[in-house]
Amino acid sequence: MGRWEPNARGRLEQAAMELFIERGFEQTTVAEIAGRAGLTERTFFRHFADKREVLFWGQDALRELLVSGVAAAPESAAPIDAVAAALEAAGAVLQERREYARRRQAVIAADTGLRERELIKLASLASALADALRRRGVTDPAASLTAEAGIAVFKIAFERWVSGTGQPDLPQLIRESLGELRAVTAGG
Amino acid sequence: MGRWEPNARGRLEQAAMELFIERGFEQTTVAEIAGRAGLTERTFFRHFADKREVLFWGQDALRELLVSGVAAAPESAAPIDAVAAALEAAGAVLQERREYARRRQAVIAADTGLRERELIKLASLASALADALRRRGVTDPAASLTAEAGIAVFKIAFERWVSGTGQPDLPQLIRESLGELRAVTAGG
Repeated sequence: MGRWEPNARGRLEQAAMELFIERGFEQTTVAEIAGRAGLTERTFFRHFADKREVLFWGQDALRELLVSGVAAAPESAAPIDAVAAALEAAGAVLQERREYARRRQAVIAADTGLRERELIKLASLASALADALRRRGVTDPAASLTAEAGIAVFKIAFERWVSGTGQPDLPQLIRESLGELRAVTAGG
Repeated sequence: MGRWEPNARGRLEQAAMELFIERGFEQTTVAEIAGRAGLTERTFFRHFADKREVLFWGQDALRELLVSGVAAAPESAAPIDAVAAALEAAGAVLQERREYARRRQAVIAADTGLRERELIKLASLASALADALRRRGVTDPAASLTAEAGIAVFKIAFERWVSGTGQPDLPQLIRESLGELRAVTAGG
């Protein structure tokens, strides 16, 4: 499988993001990404199934963070508090890559197909959260509603975070957005 | 453009739904739909852009119902109550076509691409609701959060309605699901 390229993955990701921003996602080819990174197409395909995966490979890790966060919440925690703890823990991890998240969001916002893929990712995260709640004994419709509410909070906190100055940080914006959701659903 | 076919649209829709259920969405061709309806492909394409549109043409009407429902709510109504009124009004219209909705849901559940399209439809409805709230002077993030919460309620009420016996009716399930959302976000 050729020699091991130290950090090839990181170089490919950076080259891809630069090209997506300069030319747009559709207009960028894998050959160009590999060329910009000083690597071959073959090396690209050892790391990513296609150019879209450069933007979505983190989805599995995010799902795992959310699911393990819900599982780790104290037994006594209400479902919404278990979800909030999981979202804040994931938010703290994402916080470390704000500049990457900001650029990724710009690429996605510019392409209809990527915006749709991002919606499907969020729905898949909601589904994973609902499953994690069911494993805590939460019944439906509470499990689905809590999961959907959590993802709505996450989506809106994330949008505020990437479009803002970086302060407040993402975990804080998640807490604030959940507070806002409570206020609006109460009819305040 | 040929002679006017009374009820051609309804016949095409019925033929398409039958075939989608019998063979699956992917395996059904426009030629087969037209044949089953006793019409030509040309007539099909006067009514629908493609076979997927048979399942999604109602989206614009649903969006209009939701947007006009929010606009018509009393000035004093809280945002969530304006959204709830709009959802219940739309629910009352959908209630009249429960058997169609049930079959449509079965077709969509069986096809990944259609499930994704349905998620995108729901996101577009959330976006339209948020815009309608902003036109009432609701600021963000309250407008987005209220709209997302409303669509989560609608989605879950709809799933309960199509998978259940038809009782309670959809407007009632929307009210119940909103009550559940209030309970779960309150941390109860």
